[in-house]
Amino acid sequence: MQKSLEKVFNPGSIAVIGASEVPGKAAERRTRSLIQGGYKGDIYLINPKRDELFGMKAYHSIMEVGKEIDLVMVVIAPRFIPSAVADSIKMGAKGIIIITAGLGETGEEGKKIEAEILSEAAKTGAYVIGPNCSGMFNASADINMLGIPTINKGSISVLTQSGNVIDSLTHFAKMKGCGFNKIINVGNAVGVQLHEYITYLKDDLDTKVIATYLEGIRGGNELVRAAREAAKTKPIIALKVGKSSAGARAAASHTGSLAGDDIILDAAFKQAGIVRVSNADELVDIADVFSNCPLPKGNRLVIMSEGGGDNSIAADNAEKYGIQVPLLSKKTQEKMIPVLLAGMPAHNPVDYGGTAEENPHVITECVKACMEDDQVDGILMTGFFGGFSDIIASHIAKLEEQTSRDLVDLVKKYKKPLIVNTSYARDPIKSLDILKEAGIPVIESSDRAAQCMSSLMHFAVNQKKIKEMCMPEEKITKRVGVKKLFKKVEGESRHNLLETESRELLVEYGVSLPDAALAKTPAEAMEAADRLGYPLAMKIVSPDIIHKSDAGGIKLNLSNADEIKTAFEEIMKNAEKFAPRERIVGALLSPMVSPGQECIVGMIRDAQFGPVNMFGLGGIFVEVLKDVSFRVAPLADEDIDEMIREIKGYKILTGVRGEKPKDIEAIKSVLAKLSEIVIDNPEISEIDLNPVIVHEKGLSIVDSRVLIR
Amino acid sequence: MQKSLEKVFNPGSIAVIGASEVPGKAAERRTRSLIQGGYKGDIYLINPKRDELFGMKAYHSIMEVGKEIDLVMVVIAPRFIPSAVADSIKMGAKGIIIITAGLGETGEEGKKIEAEILSEAAKTGAYVIGPNCSGMFNASADINMLGIPTINKGSISVLTQSGNVIDSLTHFAKMKGCGFNKIINVGNAVGVQLHEYITYLKDDLDTKVIATYLEGIRGGNELVRAAREAAKTKPIIALKVGKSSAGARAAASHTGSLAGDDIILDAAFKQAGIVRVSNADELVDIADVFSNCPLPKGNRLVIMSEGGGDNSIAADNAEKYGIQVPLLSKKTQEKMIPVLLAGMPAHNPVDYGGTAEENPHVITECVKACMEDDQVDGILMTGFFGGFSDIIASHIAKLEEQTSRDLVDLVKKYKKPLIVNTSYARDPIKSLDILKEAGIPVIESSDRAAQCMSSLMHFAVNQKKIKEMCMPEEKITKRVGVKKLFKKVEGESRHNLLETESRELLVEYGVSLPDAALAKTPAEAMEAADRLGYPLAMKIVSPDIIHKSDAGGIKLNLSNADEIKTAFEEIMKNAEKFAPRERIVGALLSPMVSPGQECIVGMIRDAQFGPVNMFGLGGIFVEVLKDVSFRVAPLADEDIDEMIREIKGYKILTGVRGEKPKDIEAIKSVLAKLSEIVIDNPEISEIDLNPVIVHEKGLSIVDSRVLIR
Repeated sequence: MQKSLEKVFNPGSIAVIGASEVPGKAAERRTRSLIQGGYKGDIYLINPKRDELFGMKAYHSIMEVGKEIDLVMVVIAPRFIPSAVADSIKMGAKGIIIITAGLGETGEEGKKIEAEILSEAAKTGAYVIGPNCSGMFNASADINMLGIPTINKGSISVLTQSGNVIDSLTHFAKMKGCGFNKIINVGNAVGVQLHEYITYLKDDLDTKVIATYLEGIRGGNELVRAAREAAKTKPIIALKVGKSSAGARAAASHTGSLAGDDIILDAAFKQAGIVRVSNADELVDIADVFSNCPLPKGNRLVIMSEGGGDNSIAADNAEKYGIQVPLLSKKTQEKMIPVLLAGMPAHNPVDYGGTAEENPHVITECVKACMEDDQVDGILMTGFFGGFSDIIASHIAKLEEQTSRDLVDLVKKYKKPLIVNTSYARDPIKSLDILKEAGIPVIESSDRAAQCMSSLMHFAVNQKKIKEMCMPEEKITKRVGVKKLFKKVEGESRHNLLETESRELLVEYGVSLPDAALAKTPAEAMEAADRLGYPLAMKIVSPDIIHKSDAGGIKLNLSNADEIKTAFEEIMKNAEKFAPRERIVGALLSPMVSPGQECIVGMIRDAQFGPVNMFGLGGIFVEVLKDVSFRVAPLADEDIDEMIREIKGYKILTGVRGEKPKDIEAIKSVLAKLSEIVIDNPEISEIDLNPVIVHEKGLSIVDSRVLIR
Repeated sequence: MQKSLEKVFNPGSIAVIGASEVPGKAAERRTRSLIQGGYKGDIYLINPKRDELFGMKAYHSIMEVGKEIDLVMVVIAPRFIPSAVADSIKMGAKGIIIITAGLGETGEEGKKIEAEILSEAAKTGAYVIGPNCSGMFNASADINMLGIPTINKGSISVLTQSGNVIDSLTHFAKMKGCGFNKIINVGNAVGVQLHEYITYLKDDLDTKVIATYLEGIRGGNELVRAAREAAKTKPIIALKVGKSSAGARAAASHTGSLAGDDIILDAAFKQAGIVRVSNADELVDIADVFSNCPLPKGNRLVIMSEGGGDNSIAADNAEKYGIQVPLLSKKTQEKMIPVLLAGMPAHNPVDYGGTAEENPHVITECVKACMEDDQVDGILMTGFFGGFSDIIASHIAKLEEQTSRDLVDLVKKYKKPLIVNTSYARDPIKSLDILKEAGIPVIESSDRAAQCMSSLMHFAVNQKKIKEMCMPEEKITKRVGVKKLFKKVEGESRHNLLETESRELLVEYGVSLPDAALAKTPAEAMEAADRLGYPLAMKIVSPDIIHKSDAGGIKLNLSNADEIKTAFEEIMKNAEKFAPRERIVGALLSPMVSPGQECIVGMIRDAQFGPVNMFGLGGIFVEVLKDVSFRVAPLADEDIDEMIREIKGYKILTGVRGEKPKDIEAIKSVLAKLSEIVIDNPEISEIDLNPVIVHEKGLSIVDSRVLIR
């Protein structure tokens, strides 16, 4: 196996199997863009029917080339691909990019061909990219195999599951004056997986920002790990579609990918430090800002403008994106007040209207004052800077240009992000060009400018958290008792653990549970009751009865021996309607728990991300308000903390309406242990501790349900 | 008093008091733009120190002009304004636009001058616009008094509280190729109020859409009424800032306007059919779409594109904005499938990738099929149409142009909105120009395209509702009993009604209440208890005790005569710590109510909108989740219905977790009566029915509190 994708992105030579000259065809466009792109290595064009293509010698087969070839692009009909791959492997190919569509995404026939391709490539460990992909671009090596005539060069690298989105991204970049280092469409991703690209790009010096477009995620757990690693070095901005049912439908018909639960995805991205966006132009704008701006230290923003209206709009946008716009210190205000219109406050937002339009140097003074202030993490200018000369008087153009140069110097000196929002952003104006060339973002939309600043600020905070985060050790301890338990359950062809077994599992991992005793006869029940103390709850235990209530298998508040006896007999009688006598294990007795806040703690195995932990308040909070939080296991302490804090009803746990605060530490401990259990036991497919009654001190897990695969 | 603002917008002559030639000054820019704008009426420039300005005769005083003048623009120092206004009135001015800033917004001195201005104008009923405003523009009369050199003409009219926002709006419009009919900055609005402009523009034939920028709202109740009327004819798009505390701070320092509660504002706008936006570019984009597109019949959208990725993005955006993207009928799908790539479904979104890029006529076929379908209300094309020739092959340009012409014909024929989203929207491309010229919006951002379509669809639905809405009659019945009650309370210098008085008020309006009896002695209490039946609740009644619980003034679940006696004595004893004996009226006995869902029904008097009704679930729903809804009184049945449905916990009322549905009709009836009460009695400043226990049948108002002004 090779160590990295290096030879895919920086090959010494490239062959195109299926090179063509028919205008507009996929093969022609890609062959042309490759040849015109300026690639310095050797290019070999392969077409069995041609001796010459694009004025170059063409080979009838890759075998004819007679030299080792690093990278092969394949654009031929599906049935011919496996033998072309076999030939490429023989010629020493380290990477094979398969453009051809109509393979795995269309059905079984295509999947078979994909398997053949993989088996050929496995012989040497060559990387397979695609199929059903639109190619690759690497500005550092002058490689353009995308078939898009001109692509701006820059420091954003793109991973995408859609080819057409590349057309949008490259065009937006052209319009906005930014560019790309590497672009790769992963296509059906039968070979190289998303997380492998991320791991490669993380260490790629020419890539400052990773931008990705995703439809469906496979190997989400690996993705989270790779992204969390990458986030320590550079940001990943992800456009993930399929939030809506129609969006998922469009994605599914497109690449056969299945969108998973969007709430879990959002949580996973948050955990991994991935910045999520919803549109292609957002992806370009935000990636561009990351590639140019210094990272701020926190999320305290100053907004300034010559227009009170524009300031108000920007402040609302800032709040929408979770940015703080705090009052400025007296000292900083005092630096600005002398340059503002008489009587204007400088509290933040700062309004330099009435002076700056005729004397833009006022802006420099205000920006400088804020740059010098330790309590300010970033600055957003809004209004119509660059257009003063157009609106007020033409001689102001020169003054605006000087202001731009001064602003560039201030950003360089103080290393705080400055974003300029102006309605003139798209006009060819020198003062704005000076900013753009120095990497100060000039953005037409106020909303987008705030979103960009928010992404910078939130990523910076998140990156710090991830760097400091202490991940739990992922040792598979294979506790003997637990493995034996699972074996027994499997042996009985069951998927659901009895409550007694669930309790055994939880106890093995140190989760404390309310006292309980299993009784098989009325006498045993009465004896246990005496020992446990009244009042008690009694629950049926049988592998055939999962919904115990519905089966009349639960009795509550039993307060004496007589009631215990009657309850036991009734429960058994009811159970016999649902299960044969030999599969009724008995009844579990447990003391009634004291009141507290009802919660749910659980774990599910997500199709995209694997084991995922869940937390929420119980009852209507889960059922009506869907107020739950998720995180991909394993959970760091920071993840657990966020899970609890981010539910809407969090305040209820801290005590409202005269209630005492509940024991949040106890919840954290259960979540941490659940994370350990699911990482340790891949057999488990679901855990549901529900209800968990959280008291002022401690909690009571009233019911537990565990499913294995 | 005059009947309308006609002479303000279409004056026969205009005088500029304070006309100037100093470059860049407010007066110079406005005088210049007025002269250069092409106004056909007479212009008189007034400046005591000049005989000539801009090559025209200048007058030392407006009195010198010697002719009747319709409209006067005033740009002079504050202290000179009252006499200038007096002179203008003498010269017959129907409208006076005061540009000068530094009046009411800066303090008492300015407010005094404003009062003088108003008193002069009142002599003839002349309209006063501003002060602190940036002027007026009317394309229909070639009037440009804004000092912005060139403004695109079109059919959007703008009302704004900020001058600078006009700079942004006019520049965005220039960039996007749309334009304005009338623009007015209302400034401090001491004279003409927002709702008066709206009422004028509602009937203005040259205005298709009203776009407005708002910081603070005065006379919100009138605004809601005027806007609701206007919505029957044309849309109002409103950019209202001040959602955030920093946004409110910026707005306050800017024009002295006070932003109110944003939740109430959102509710009021919804009621009035106002489309709310958050940014200046959104305001322009959405107003432009309204000025060009046919209104759809509902909110069922078809999304189509040559890119699966772009389709997925658009579908997610559609969901975000509350648009339906339903599966298409078999018939419509069958019309499209033949032109799509083999094997592609046509369920919606429709993916014509792989055929349309080389043969754009495929798009026409798809759009036609959807236009013909009664179940489709609008179509959103996304992707990179217009750029096919750039990306695929240059000969496709002609084919794209023909497709554009065909699309224009289809929209004309079927009168359904088509919005085109393409990353090439801002490029000078003929196929796109054909669309733009015919009024088909071509939008660069996928998100914005969905937002525009959503605004069209939701406004159309809202307009239909408003047209059919039956508003309750607003007769002030001045019920004698109630007025007598208020008089009594006022006579005692009280603002809070006793609970017995609140009950009296509610009963007068037909609100049914649980039985109750006031007792002044233990004997009376026991007698009342016998009559009412056990168990009972007992509450203190005293004007000095508002928080009854805190004063030990509530006893619950009293179940026999002894308990009644003890409770009465305790309550009285407790009360004496809070009120002198003569102000303790007695104790109110009422049967304990059966369980149900706790709700709150109330009314407050909002600073912006006046009387506003409120509804929510009780307990943590109000206190932690802030899950309440508001509507400005009077409430139509549709308002009441929305109020109840829009709370997040609505499902709880319909029955969850085994609970029976609650009596929603009973809640509606209370809300309707509350609306009647507050309209009928402007004395009331607050009503709080809390808790209201809603049963399966009927409800119990357990406590009521009414404040008067």
